[in-house]
Order: sequence, then structure tokens, then C-alpha cells
Amino acid sequence: MQRKILMTDCADERGLIAKITSVCFKHQLNIIKNSEFVDNLQQRFFMRTELEGEFHEEQLLADLQEVLPQKNQMRLIDAGRKRVVVLVTKEAHCLGDLLMKAYYGALDVEIAAVIGNYETLASLAGKFDVPFHFVSHEGLTREEHEQALLHQISPYQPDYVVLAKFMRVLTPGFVKQYPNRIINIHHSFLPAFIGANPYRQAWERGVKIIGATAHFVNDSLDEGPIIKQDVIPVDHNYSAEDMAKAGRDVEKSVLSRALALVVNNQVVVNGNKTLVFK
Amino acid sequence: MQRKILMTDCADERGLIAKITSVCFKHQLNIIKNSEFVDNLQQRFFMRTELEGEFHEEQLLADLQEVLPQKNQMRLIDAGRKRVVVLVTKEAHCLGDLLMKAYYGALDVEIAAVIGNYETLASLAGKFDVPFHFVSHEGLTREEHEQALLHQISPYQPDYVVLAKFMRVLTPGFVKQYPNRIINIHHSFLPAFIGANPYRQAWERGVKIIGATAHFVNDSLDEGPIIKQDVIPVDHNYSAEDMAKAGRDVEKSVLSRALALVVNNQVVVNGNKTLVFK
Amino acid sequence: MQRKILMTDCADERGLIAKITSVCFKHQLNIIKNSEFVDNLQQRFFMRTELEGEFHEEQLLADLQEVLPQKNQMRLIDAGRKRVVVLVTKEAHCLGDLLMKAYYGALDVEIAAVIGNYETLASLAGKFDVPFHFVSHEGLTREEHEQALLHQISPYQPDYVVLAKFMRVLTPGFVKQYPNRIINIHHSFLPAFIGANPYRQAWERGVKIIGATAHFVNDSLDEGPIIKQDVIPVDHNYSAEDMAKAGRDVEKSVLSRALALVVNNQVVVNGNKTLVFK
Amino acid sequence: MQRKILMTDCADERGLIAKITSVCFKHQLNIIKNSEFVDNLQQRFFMRTELEGEFHEEQLLADLQEVLPQKNQMRLIDAGRKRVVVLVTKEAHCLGDLLMKAYYGALDVEIAAVIGNYETLASLAGKFDVPFHFVSHEGLTREEHEQALLHQISPYQPDYVVLAKFMRVLTPGFVKQYPNRIINIHHSFLPAFIGANPYRQAWERGVKIIGATAHFVNDSLDEGPIIKQDVIPVDHNYSAEDMAKAGRDVEKSVLSRALALVVNNQVVVNGNKTLVFK
Repeated sequence: MQRKILMTDCADERGLIAKITSVCFKHQLNIIKNSEFVDNLQQRFFMRTELEGEFHEEQLLADLQEVLPQKNQMRLIDAGRKRVVVLVTKEAHCLGDLLMKAYYGALDVEIAAVIGNYETLASLAGKFDVPFHFVSHEGLTREEHEQALLHQISPYQPDYVVLAKFMRVLTPGFVKQYPNRIINIHHSFLPAFIGANPYRQAWERGVKIIGATAHFVNDSLDEGPIIKQDVIPVDHNYSAEDMAKAGRDVEKSVLSRALALVVNNQVVVNGNKTLVFK
Repeated sequence: MQRKILMTDCADERGLIAKITSVCFKHQLNIIKNSEFVDNLQQRFFMRTELEGEFHEEQLLADLQEVLPQKNQMRLIDAGRKRVVVLVTKEAHCLGDLLMKAYYGALDVEIAAVIGNYETLASLAGKFDVPFHFVSHEGLTREEHEQALLHQISPYQPDYVVLAKFMRVLTPGFVKQYPNRIINIHHSFLPAFIGANPYRQAWERGVKIIGATAHFVNDSLDEGPIIKQDVIPVDHNYSAEDMAKAGRDVEKSVLSRALALVVNNQVVVNGNKTLVFK
Repeated sequence: MQRKILMTDCADERGLIAKITSVCFKHQLNIIKNSEFVDNLQQRFFMRTELEGEFHEEQLLADLQEVLPQKNQMRLIDAGRKRVVVLVTKEAHCLGDLLMKAYYGALDVEIAAVIGNYETLASLAGKFDVPFHFVSHEGLTREEHEQALLHQISPYQPDYVVLAKFMRVLTPGFVKQYPNRIINIHHSFLPAFIGANPYRQAWERGVKIIGATAHFVNDSLDEGPIIKQDVIPVDHNYSAEDMAKAGRDVEKSVLSRALALVVNNQVVVNGNKTLVFK
Repeated sequence: MQRKILMTDCADERGLIAKITSVCFKHQLNIIKNSEFVDNLQQRFFMRTELEGEFHEEQLLADLQEVLPQKNQMRLIDAGRKRVVVLVTKEAHCLGDLLMKAYYGALDVEIAAVIGNYETLASLAGKFDVPFHFVSHEGLTREEHEQALLHQISPYQPDYVVLAKFMRVLTPGFVKQYPNRIINIHHSFLPAFIGANPYRQAWERGVKIIGATAHFVNDSLDEGPIIKQDVIPVDHNYSAEDMAKAGRDVEKSVLSRALALVVNNQVVVNGNKTLVFK
């Protein structure tokens, strides 16, 4: 008895739910949960079908191909644990939360390695017996540094790369190695306060709410598809540093919850947005 | 071209989604949105299927009956505007919000009438050209008063009866006239502070958050299936009256949003709980 | 027995609380509530002192002047009801909430008049017996239209001018007539989505939370001191129109709560920010 | 240059702010922040005054005694780091968050020791070089177990005892050793779901929001003064276990934030409630 997720993403037409679920039924697979979404503007159909049973994967995909309007419009994903590599700089809170959750089973991930452009967090990774690689950016061009990072990351064959307060902008060259598989936490309620020092920006603007945003990374800084956002109230008693301090709890919680959605195969990228299925 | 909602509620078995959506496909109906839920404990299957097209209703239901495990397990509901009767006592905020929203099309309901056990809100109903009936409880037994209420309500043949701060407990005799069709707003975050004067109870307990709960009414006071809840923060500066004042905004918003979900056919009762489909 | 608010705003120095409250004590005034804030960057001291008793206003202010570092650094404000004029365009929800709350005493304001650049909401104002003036912008320059607005507003001598979804940008010439006395509701979580059609912008960006912002109006569009913000979650099922619909409830609640804070004399402008005292 | 907090709690009378702050001024102390609250029902005055300067503590307290209506109504507290002992059972999330925050300076506490009635979390404490004591309850009466706990706790002379998912009820005999100094996290939005297994209770009731409550422990289970509460939305897709899992993030965040308020001397107990000063 296995559990797999069938992800369909194809041109919309009438009858798709019936066709796809009928194939699953014919294969004697039990549908644990089925969620669909139609993007009416793009005329595009998305469905997440959580299946349980004995899979004859090749035959299943072939049978599905026959009923779908186009070829190769679906993926069958194992429901199990995902492997991630975490990139960090100096701040401990997001990494600490991920390590704790992975260690105690609150997040279905294996943290294969932590890579830092500073050595600061080596000891934290060590506490949880996770390998840490120090890849300094000093004296390197951006491209050289990214090559060095990729050199460390790729042997781990991660399902996802998580930027847990990694304070470096990544180039398109890096990003295309892991399309829609790099998750970043930005310390503001995007698109407010794009770029550097968002808490100072928030403080200067006098906002009454601050937030954090987890998103997939694409080629434009802070512009990738948003997965999860959350906010907390602040008031005039907060200095910029108080906001940063209060914001850290939101950052770590938003990143962890976004990663949970992603590794649970609930998130689908649709252009520059995400669908997050229940 | 019509739009209808097919609501299925039956014993769970494999293949139900395929069977039901195949019947819809055969009828050339377009599925706008499909949501399902399986109650594993009760082995019960629920599905909400929003359909568009030309309906041959009798044939459709007959065809569906054939594929379902039991008879009469589904309903086909028109997607249009619902008719409601609102019961009130003296407080204006919930009624005002419903009247405003109905009048300006923000809520897909026709408020057929407002009935009060005091005359206080007659003028408010009048501002929006809604008939108001004054049905005093004075000098009447509870049963006599409810008979008088039913006498006023039933000619309107409401889809739902909304208790918008109606400060009277209803007997099972009344409730069974409108099973799962009476919606109440309770001014607390249930099940905290059941019963009278919840804001005073909240103030006495020194809670830091207060809330409101919209629920279907069943035979036990404040015990019916919860549709919607929301909360707001309070602090030690709030008196019980300040809490009540702040809470009124939550009450009206929770009641309006619960009613929107209900009239949009997104809410299904499952025992003493609700399923709220997106 | 009267109640007044003493608002102090002066250069910071040691002993100010002692000096000011000692003067109040000498005048046998009871301090109901005292709140202070020091802006360390600007070296500026702010205090809100809610006083009760018999006021000898001239003498009190003279005595206070003597202990303060500079002249004319405080104001004594009556705690009573404030008079507002509301400017609208076509959307009813914010105006409706203000009218309901003013009518039923949930907001301590007298709505002296409603002025619209369309006639759409005349009937709504009429329901609550509030005068409505139609001041069309058609065929007028921006300056001419603002002159026409001021001509209608100024006879009412409002304490505050409330822009309840007034969809026109005001020029500095207008704004300076009511410095820090014009309150606007912007339908986004500022500074995200400044300018036109924020819900469409939010939908296009794929945000997971939307919000509204009430702020004082200054010379730059959507840049004035923020008084209150609130947000609600949305997901991929929301169209831009669904977001707008859901957002309206936040808009009206944020505007009403901001106005409540302002008329209760809890809000002080400090540069481009507000202090909001409890 | 030192920083101390003056906490006043006395019968209310006119002029207290002036009197107390004048004494501070006479002592050339700078008031960093001053917050007061009057409990009108109890006729009780509370004030928190954050002071900076050179303290002549004995003289200051003597001078203050002279102006206060009763003797011994104030405390002068050092603003520095507090020492805590944490009691746990088997769940790691709250302890992990406290250890991370203490270790990285996000919480101004020294965790002197962790004590568990199971050995489960010894390794977690060890990761952060915090002593762990295993004090099993097996084979002991409740009183004997509490004596064993006190025997381990008291040598550390903690300012506060934190129950980080310590799943044992404490007797009044234990509680009176640390009056208003024991902080518990309860995994529900109190007073909803008092007692055992609140997530199952919440799931059975079908609530749409779950929460957590940090409170001081007094003699009645789950009845002590509430310090902080927070909530998150859930829906019908959540099993009781899903609620528990989602709730853990709220629990740890509520406990950490409550502890931050307490060690920052912002929390004052007033009967069975707390005042939480900004």
C-alpha cells in the first residue's frame, strides 16, 4: 500500500475530473483527497489527487495520457519525506526552527546539509548532527561564489533548497538549477518593503502591522511566487530593532509552514503565483 | 445556461468522485468547482459540485441515484439568491450590517422581513424598506411566543432564519421547523463563555482575546454546529463594556460572513460540525 | 465636573511628567489616564493626560507654560463628541458603517454632512437624516472642484473630514485647510499597492493576505501618517473582485476604528507617523 | 548608570503620579517609560516606571514611602536578565524555542536548568549546555514528587519557574513556593477546553479557531491570571492530531512571548488577572 500525489496541470476542457478520477478508479486506487482549480483567464486546469493503493506507475501514466488534452501534463509524486539543503548567513532563528522540527518529526524533511557564507551557524547545525559547509563569498565574484555553493549543494541532490535568512541575492544562473525548488523567507509583508532592511523601512513608514513572506525564488529579487505570508501588530513603541526582533518569530513560523506545505505537495506554481491546496 | 450546486452526502466507497463527475460529464455539464471531504471516522463522503449548463434535473438525479451506494443521498440546489427572515431584539449592529449588504448587493440574500420581540429596530428595517413585525413575548408562554413568531415567519417561506442578536432561547419545537436553517450569532468565542453576558464573563476571567461565533441552532443552547468564528485582541484597559463595544464589530462581521458562506451553499452540516467548502 | 484631554508635545527633558502632573494636582484635577512617549531620535516628549474636575483653563495653561521648556507646547481638548463631514464617491460600505455607528451611538461623532462627487449615495445619507451635497467634478478643473467642496464643507466647521472611499486625489491647497484632520481609507496594506486598483495589483502579485489602511492625508498620495491597518487572509480561489468584496469589510472596520481613535483623542501625529495611545 | 523598574501597587488617590514622579525627579532619575492603570472597581492604582540614573535605593524607597497612601506598596526591580528553571515532560517544541532564544539572546533569560519527569528531553537540554535533572514521578505520591522537584529547583534560586508542557498538575503546596512566579502554557484558548486533551475537545466541538494560553499558575487548574493568548484558524480538514500539530507553533510562540513580557517586568498581577504594560 503506497501513497502518491497525482499533480495535473493542463489546458482546461469539460470532463477532466471525471476522466482522470475514472482512470484512478480503474486502477483500483483510493482517492484520499482531491482538489482542483481552474484558472479561467489562462483556461488552465490544475488538480491535486492524493492516491492510495498499489501503483502500476507506467500504466497509470499511460492511461492518464490518453484522457488528457495534451501529453505529459501530470506528475506522480511520492508522498514521503523530502530532502532539503538549507542556506544561511548569520541569523539563527529560522535555521533553529527547521532543525528542531526536522529532528523531532514536526516537519517531514531530512535536512541533508546547512551551507553558510559565514561560519556563525556551524555550531547550531552541529547540535543536531547536520553537516555544515562554510562557503565564504569573500574574494569571489558572485558567479564564483554561486559555483562554489552549487558544488556543495548538488551532491546532496536536494528536493528543495531553503534560504533561511541567506542574505545574498542569487543570479538567474543559480536559480535555473532548481526551478521552483528554492524557497526564500523575506522579512517583510511583500510587496511592501522590497530589498534591504525592510524593518527599518517599516519603522520609517510608521506601519501598524509587520509581516514576513515565504516565496519561491525566480529571477527577480523578492518577486517570486508567494507561498505563505503572516503578520503581527506593532505600535509606536517599537523601534526598528524591536520590529526586527518581533518579526523573527513570524519569519521562522512562515518559513516552516511554507516548507511544510511544499514538502506535503500542496503547492503548485501557476505563473508568478502559487496555488496552495488544502 | 443555469448554475446549480450538487451536494452529495453518502456512505464512502471507492470511485465516488469518478462516478458522480462522469454522470455530470455525460449530461454535458461543466464543473465550475468541485470540493470533497471524507469523514474517515464515520466513513462518510461529502462532495460539493458547482455545475453550469442545461439541466435535465429529473434525469440527472435519476442517473446519479444509480451510481450512488444509497438512494436519495444528494441534493441539487439553485445557485441564486436566498430568502431570509431576521429575528432581532434591540441591538442594531448585526441587523444594520445585513440590511446594508443585502441592499447594496454585497450579500446574495433578500431580507423578506425583520421580526423583533421589541419595537426598537422597526425604524431601521424601515430605512431599507423591509417589513418589520413586532411580536412581543410579554404575557406569553415561551411556546405561545414561538407560535406567534412562526405565524409571522412561515408565510415568507424563508430559506434561512437569522438570529441577529435575538436574545431569546428557542425551544426544540421551534428549531425543528427549520432544521440546520437557523443561524445564530453568539457573542463569544464558543465554547468559552456559553450563556448569558459573555463579555462580562470574559472581562472577569481576564482574557486577552475575545471573539464571536456564528452557528446553526440545534436543541442545545450555544451547542449547534459552528460555521464561522473570529477574534480580536483586548487588554487590561478594556472594561466589560469596552469589550462588548469592540466585540460588536466582530459579531456583525462573523454573522455576515457566515451567512454569505451558507447562502453560497458552501456549508454542509456533518453531525454537530460543519464542513465549509472553499 | 468636566473631562478634558491635555496633549503635550515638547522638547524632552528630565522631570516633565512630574512637572505637568504636579500642575494638574495643584489644580485638583483627577488624572483618569496618563500615557507618554519619548521619541529618542527627535528628543521629543509626548504626553496624553485625561483629566476630570473643574477646569480653570486659562490659569491651568498659564501654569503649565511655566514648567514646560518652550511656550505653547500643549493643547487642552474637550472630551466630547466631534463633528465630521464625510466625502464619498459611489461605494456605500464605509459610509454606511459610519452612519450606522453615528446614529446608534457606537461612534462619538456627529456626521454633519455627506458630500459626494456623484449622487449615488444621497439616498443612503437620507436614510439617516444626514444632509447630502452633490458636488460634481465634471467640467471643473481640480482646483475649481476643490473650491466647490470647501465651499460646502467649511460652513459645517468640521473637526475632521473623512474620506470614505472618495476616489479623488486632493491637492496640497485643499489639504492645508485641514492639517492632520483629513482621514482617508486606502484599500490596501500600505505601502504595498499604492495608487489605483490595489486589489487588482494584489491579485496579480498573488499575495496571501490583503488589507486596508486608514491614514491622515498629507501632500503625497497615500503617504500620510498611518493610524490603523488590518488584514485578512485570501487564497488562490479569490479573483480580484472577490478580494475587493472581502476587502470592503476590512476597509469599513479599519476606517471606523481609526476614526474612533481620532475622535477619542488617542492619536497624535509625530512627523510622518502617528502615536496611538491606549 | 543603572536601569531599574519601579512598580507601584497601592490604593488609588488623587496626585499619585505627580508625587511619585516628583520623588524620582528629585533623585535626578530619568523616566524612560511610565505606564499606569487604575482599577476603578477596586480603587487601586498601578504604575510601572522605568528609571535610569544613579540609584540611592534605600533613600529613594524611603522618600517614596512618604508620599504613598500606605507603606510598602512599591518594588524596585533590576532591569537585567532573569534566571528561570524549566519543567518539561516529553514534548520538545516549547523547550526548544526557549533554549534557542536564551542561547541566541532573543530572550533575556538564563535557563539555569531543565527538569523533566521523563528523560526524553535530556539530550535537547544538553545540546545547549543546560543541566537536565530527571525527577520521575513513578512510585511517588504527588507530594513526594513535588518535594523532589523543589529539591532540584530551589538551589538555582530561579526568578521564575516555566512549565513548558509539563503535564502534571501542581498542588497549592508547590505553587505557594513561587507565588505569581510559575508560568504555564495551556494548549487551548482558555477558558475553552480546560483540562485534558484540549485539541481533541476542540476537534469534537468543531471549532474554527484554536489557540494557546500562557498564564501564571495558582491553586486552581488552568485558572491562573492570563498573560498572553493567541489563535490560528483551522477547518474541517484538520484531524485532532493536525490541530495538535498546528497548535504547537502557537504554544511555543505564546509561551516565549509571555515569558519575554514577564522577564521584561511588563506584567503585574491584579487579582486573577494581569496588567500587561507596553
